[in-house]
Amino acid sequence: MTRKAIFYHAGCPICIDAERQFADKLDPIQYQVEIVHLGEAKNRIAEAEAAGVKSVPAFVIDGQAYHINFGADLTALK
Amino acid sequence: MTRKAIFYHAGCPICIDAERQFADKLDPIQYQVEIVHLGEAKNRIAEAEAAGVKSVPAFVIDGQAYHINFGADLTALK
Repeated sequence: MTRKAIFYHAGCPICIDAERQFADKLDPIQYQVEIVHLGEAKNRIAEAEAAGVKSVPAFVIDGQAYHINFGADLTALK
Repeated sequence: MTRKAIFYHAGCPICIDAERQFADKLDPIQYQVEIVHLGEAKNRIAEAEAAGVKSVPAFVIDGQAYHINFGADLTALK
Protein backbone atom coordinates (compact mmCIF):
# COMPACT_ATOMS: atom_id res chain seq x y z
CA MET A 1 0.00 0.00 0.00
CA THR A 2 1.30 3.43 -0.88
CA ARG A 3 1.70 5.56 2.24
CA LYS A 4 2.03 9.29 2.50
CA ALA A 5 5.31 11.05 3.26
CA ILE A 6 5.28 14.81 3.74
CA PHE A 7 8.55 16.63 3.09
CA TYR A 8 8.73 20.02 4.80
CA HIS A 9 11.35 22.51 3.66
CA ALA A 10 12.03 26.22 3.40
CA GLY A 11 13.93 26.56 0.15
CA CYS A 12 17.33 26.59 1.90
CA PRO A 13 20.30 24.92 0.15
CA ILE A 14 20.29 22.02 2.64
CA CYS A 15 16.55 21.64 2.05
CA ILE A 16 16.93 21.57 -1.72
CA ASP A 17 19.71 19.02 -1.49
CA ALA A 18 17.63 16.78 0.82
CA GLU A 19 14.70 17.10 -1.57
CA ARG A 20 16.87 16.00 -4.47
CA GLN A 21 18.53 13.12 -2.60
CA PHE A 22 15.53 11.81 -0.63
CA ALA A 23 12.14 13.30 -1.43
CA ASP A 24 12.68 12.74 -5.16
CA LYS A 25 14.20 9.30 -4.65
CA LEU A 26 11.68 7.48 -2.50
CA ASP A 27 10.09 4.50 -4.14
CA PRO A 28 6.81 5.72 -5.68
CA ILE A 29 5.29 2.31 -5.04
CA GLN A 30 5.91 2.75 -1.29
CA TYR A 31 5.36 6.46 -0.75
CA GLN A 32 3.30 9.24 -2.14
CA VAL A 33 5.41 12.31 -1.36
CA GLU A 34 3.91 15.74 -0.71
CA ILE A 35 6.40 18.61 -0.73
CA VAL A 36 5.51 21.59 1.48
CA HIS A 37 7.48 24.87 1.46
CA LEU A 38 6.84 26.25 4.94
CA GLY A 39 8.13 29.69 3.98
CA GLU A 40 5.28 29.93 1.47
CA ALA A 41 2.68 27.83 3.29
CA LYS A 42 2.97 29.28 6.78
CA ASN A 43 -0.49 27.92 7.58
CA ARG A 44 1.08 24.44 7.63
CA ILE A 45 3.75 25.22 10.23
CA ALA A 46 1.41 24.26 13.10
CA GLU A 47 0.73 20.84 11.58
CA ALA A 48 4.47 20.22 11.14
CA GLU A 49 5.13 21.27 14.71
CA ALA A 50 2.35 19.04 16.00
CA ALA A 51 4.07 16.07 14.32
CA GLY A 52 7.32 16.92 16.11
CA VAL A 53 9.15 18.82 13.37
CA LYS A 54 11.72 21.16 14.97
CA SER A 55 13.68 22.16 11.88
CA VAL A 56 13.72 21.76 8.12
CA PRO A 57 14.35 19.78 6.05
CA ALA A 58 12.21 17.08 7.62
CA PHE A 59 9.84 14.32 6.66
CA VAL A 60 6.70 13.29 8.48
CA ILE A 61 5.80 9.65 7.86
CA ASP A 62 3.13 7.82 9.86
CA GLY A 63 2.99 10.80 12.22
CA GLN A 64 6.71 10.59 13.03
CA ALA A 65 9.19 13.40 12.28
CA TYR A 66 12.48 12.63 10.58
CA HIS A 67 14.94 15.53 10.45
CA ILE A 68 17.57 15.34 7.75
CA ASN A 69 20.63 17.36 8.72
CA PHE A 70 19.81 20.93 9.72
CA GLY A 71 18.75 23.75 7.42
CA ALA A 72 16.66 26.15 9.50
CA ASP A 73 14.81 26.14 12.77
CA LEU A 74 11.05 26.11 12.48
CA THR A 75 10.82 29.16 14.73
CA ALA A 76 12.79 31.15 12.12
CA LEU A 77 9.98 30.61 9.61
CA LYS A 78 7.18 32.14 11.65
CA MET B 1 21.82 5.37 -13.54
CA THR B 2 21.63 3.61 -10.19
CA ARG B 3 23.79 5.35 -7.62
CA LYS B 4 25.07 4.01 -4.35
CA ALA B 5 23.66 5.05 -0.99
CA ILE B 6 25.32 3.75 2.18
CA PHE B 7 23.17 3.60 5.30
CA TYR B 8 25.21 3.53 8.52
CA HIS B 9 23.55 2.47 11.72
CA ALA B 10 24.26 0.83 15.07
CA GLY B 11 21.18 -1.27 15.71
CA CYS B 12 19.58 1.39 17.94
CA PRO B 13 15.78 1.82 17.86
CA ILE B 14 16.07 5.14 15.99
CA CYS B 15 18.42 3.46 13.51
CA ILE B 16 16.06 0.56 12.91
CA ASP B 17 13.15 2.92 12.40
CA ALA B 18 15.14 5.03 9.90
CA GLU B 19 16.17 1.86 8.08
CA ARG B 20 12.56 0.79 7.79
CA GLN B 21 11.27 4.22 6.72
CA PHE B 22 14.10 5.31 4.41
CA ALA B 23 16.78 2.74 3.62
CA ASP B 24 14.14 0.14 2.71
CA LYS B 25 12.02 2.66 0.84
CA LEU B 26 14.41 4.30 -1.58
CA ASP B 27 13.61 3.71 -5.22
CA PRO B 28 15.70 0.70 -6.31
CA ILE B 29 15.93 2.20 -9.79
CA GLN B 30 17.65 5.27 -8.33
CA TYR B 31 19.75 3.86 -5.51
CA GLN B 32 21.56 0.71 -4.64
CA VAL B 33 21.52 0.75 -0.83
CA GLU B 34 24.26 -0.79 1.28
CA ILE B 35 23.45 -1.20 4.98
CA VAL B 36 26.42 -1.06 7.36
CA HIS B 37 26.15 -1.82 11.09
CA LEU B 38 29.02 0.17 12.57
CA GLY B 39 28.80 -1.67 15.88
CA GLU B 40 29.67 -4.89 14.03
CA ALA B 41 31.86 -3.40 11.27
CA LYS B 42 34.07 -1.09 13.31
CA ASN B 43 36.62 -1.11 10.49
CA ARG B 44 34.17 1.06 8.51
CA ILE B 45 33.84 3.81 11.13
CA ALA B 46 36.82 5.70 9.64
CA GLU B 47 35.23 5.74 6.17
CA ALA B 48 31.95 7.05 7.63
CA GLU B 49 33.80 9.74 9.57
CA ALA B 50 35.76 10.75 6.48
CA ALA B 51 32.44 11.34 4.68
CA GLY B 52 31.28 13.62 7.49
CA VAL B 53 29.12 11.22 9.48
CA LYS B 54 28.92 12.41 13.11
CA SER B 55 26.12 10.18 14.37
CA VAL B 56 23.91 7.31 13.31
CA PRO B 57 21.57 6.73 11.62
CA ALA B 58 23.03 8.44 8.57
CA PHE B 59 23.28 8.02 4.84
CA VAL B 60 26.26 8.81 2.66
CA ILE B 61 25.26 9.60 -0.91
CA ASP B 62 27.68 11.06 -3.44
CA GLY B 63 30.19 11.59 -0.64
CA GLN B 64 27.73 13.72 1.39
CA ALA B 65 26.50 12.77 4.86
CA TYR B 66 22.79 12.96 5.69
CA HIS B 67 21.95 12.46 9.35
CA ILE B 68 18.43 11.30 10.10
CA ASN B 69 17.40 12.30 13.61
CA PHE B 70 19.89 11.21 16.27
CA GLY B 71 20.48 7.69 17.52
CA ALA B 72 24.07 7.54 18.76
CA ASP B 73 27.24 9.53 18.40
CA LEU B 74 29.91 7.92 16.26
CA THR B 75 32.44 8.30 19.08
CA ALA B 76 30.26 6.01 21.25
CA LEU B 77 30.82 3.17 18.78
CA LYS B 78 34.61 3.10 18.90
